[in-house]
Amino acid sequence: MKLLRVGPVGQERPVVMDDAGNLRDIGEPEIDGAFLASGGVARVRDALERGALPIVDAEGLRIGAPIARPGKVVCIGLNYSDHAAESGLDVPAEPVVFMKAANTVIGPYDEVLVPRGSVKTDWEVELAIVIGQEARYLGSREEALGVIAGYAISNDVSEREFQLERGGQWDKGKSCETFNPLGPWLVTADEVADPQSLALRLWVNGETRQDGETKNMIFDVAEIVRYLSQFMVLEPGDVINTGTPAGVAMGMPGQPYLRAGDVMELEIEGLGRQRQTVGQA
Amino acid sequence: MKLLRVGPVGQERPVVMDDAGNLRDIGEPEIDGAFLASGGVARVRDALERGALPIVDAEGLRIGAPIARPGKVVCIGLNYSDHAAESGLDVPAEPVVFMKAANTVIGPYDEVLVPRGSVKTDWEVELAIVIGQEARYLGSREEALGVIAGYAISNDVSEREFQLERGGQWDKGKSCETFNPLGPWLVTADEVADPQSLALRLWVNGETRQDGETKNMIFDVAEIVRYLSQFMVLEPGDVINTGTPAGVAMGMPGQPYLRAGDVMELEIEGLGRQRQTVGQA
Repeated sequence: MKLLRVGPVGQERPVVMDDAGNLRDIGEPEIDGAFLASGGVARVRDALERGALPIVDAEGLRIGAPIARPGKVVCIGLNYSDHAAESGLDVPAEPVVFMKAANTVIGPYDEVLVPRGSVKTDWEVELAIVIGQEARYLGSREEALGVIAGYAISNDVSEREFQLERGGQWDKGKSCETFNPLGPWLVTADEVADPQSLALRLWVNGETRQDGETKNMIFDVAEIVRYLSQFMVLEPGDVINTGTPAGVAMGMPGQPYLRAGDVMELEIEGLGRQRQTVGQA
Repeated sequence: MKLLRVGPVGQERPVVMDDAGNLRDIGEPEIDGAFLASGGVARVRDALERGALPIVDAEGLRIGAPIARPGKVVCIGLNYSDHAAESGLDVPAEPVVFMKAANTVIGPYDEVLVPRGSVKTDWEVELAIVIGQEARYLGSREEALGVIAGYAISNDVSEREFQLERGGQWDKGKSCETFNPLGPWLVTADEVADPQSLALRLWVNGETRQDGETKNMIFDVAEIVRYLSQFMVLEPGDVINTGTPAGVAMGMPGQPYLRAGDVMELEIEGLGRQRQTVGQA
C-alpha cells in the first residue's frame, strides 16, 4: 500500500492510494508511531479490501511527509563506495551513524531553504526506512527486516561547510530547516520485493546528478537496522536515511551547490517522485 | 519555580514544588513543548500564587524527567577546557554540536544500563537548557536568553568505544537506551540568576569524579543557544546539554568505566540532585 498525508502544514490528513490512484480516508487519526505499532497497516489493508474507505477529494491539496513527526531521524554516512570516493573519504569498516533533527522533515514538494550564511547547500537522494515496531538488540537480519514498516524517498539535504569545516561533528550541517523532504508515500514493506534492487536518481534543473542503485550499498537495509538496534532503541515512526550514491555537488567539478530558484527532482523505483524548489532562508 | 513529573514510566503527572516543598497539581495535561510555548509557566505561577493548586500525595512516587519526550536533544562537545584536555582534543574554535536520540531521556533516579558489548560506559554531568519558544536565526545573546524556559541537571552518559573507536560520528556512543537521566526539576529561568555561576559535581560510589563550575564553559549558555539557532530550528521542549567539565572515566588513570552495581550521584547548585544505579542491558 501507498500511505500518505495530504493537506496544509500541520493539518495533514492520512490517506491511502488505491490501485486506481484514488486517495481514500484511512479512518485513523494519523500515520505515526502509534498507528504503525498498533497494526494500523493491517487495519487499513483490511478496510481497503472490504471497500470500506471513502474516496477523498484531494484535488490541489499539498502532499506532506507520509508520516507525522518522527521520534528521530538516523542517517548512515558514506554507504555507497562511489560517494565515499567523491567525498575523499575511505569506505567505512562499519556503518557511520549520525542524526538529523527530526523537525527537518517536510513534504516531498515543499520548498527547501538555503540557510542564511550558506554557500554549500547540497542534495542527497536516499532510500528511507520507516520503522514499524520497537527494536533493541536485534539478533538477525530476518528480525531486522521484520521491524520495517516500509520505505520512502528521502532527500538528505546537507550544508557541506557546516558539516565538514565548522568544527566537529556532521550533525551541524544536516539539521537546518527544511533539510529532509520525505515522501510522497510510505510504501509498505510487503510491496517492496527487494529493497536492494531499486534505482535512485536525482536531477537539478533537469540535469541528472545522481543515478545509483541500492544494490551498491556497502551495508544493506537489513544490516543497517540490525546494527543500529545494538546502539539505540528504534521506535515505530523512526526514519533511517540509508546513504546516498555518487553525484552530489561537493564531488562535482566546480561544485555547483544549490541556489535559490534551483529545482531538485528525485525518484526511486516504486517509491514515486519528489520535486523541490530551492528558496533562501 | 520547580516543575517536575511524578509517576510510573509513561504515566507521569505534572506537578510544581511549592516553597514549603509540597508537590501541587499544575492543572495542565503535560510539561512539554505545547505547555511551554503557550505560557504555561506563567499560568502555573499565577495559579500557585492564588493558592489554586491542590497538594498531591506523591509519597513513594517515582520522579520522571521534568519534561515529556523532547523533539530533540542537542549536545555541545568539549565545552570545558579541562575536559577537552583530558580527552586529548583541542579546545574548539566554535561549538562542537552532536545529538542524542530523544528516547534516551529518563528520570533522575532511573537505572542506567551498560549496553550489551560495552566496556567503556562513562558519565558526564551537564547543565541542560530547556527551550521555551521556537527560535531560528537569533540575532543576539539577549534574544537567546529570552527563549530559554529553564534549566535542569543532565547526565550525558556516553559509551567511549562506540563514540570514538567504531567509525565516524559521536552519536553512536551517545544514544543508547537510558543514556540521558534528566531532572529532578525543570527550574524556571527566572530562578537561575546566573547560569554561568553554578557548581556541578558528580560522584561514583561516593567518590568525587567531577567538580566543575559553569563559569568555565568555553561557549556560555547565551552563545550556545544563539549559535545553534543559526543551524537548526529550536523548538519548545528541546533539551540542550551544554558540555561536561573534567573528571570522566576516559580521562582518569585506569579508566574506571561504569559497571553494573555502580552508583552515580550528580548535583548542580540550585537544580537539585540525581542518583542512578547502573545495570546491565
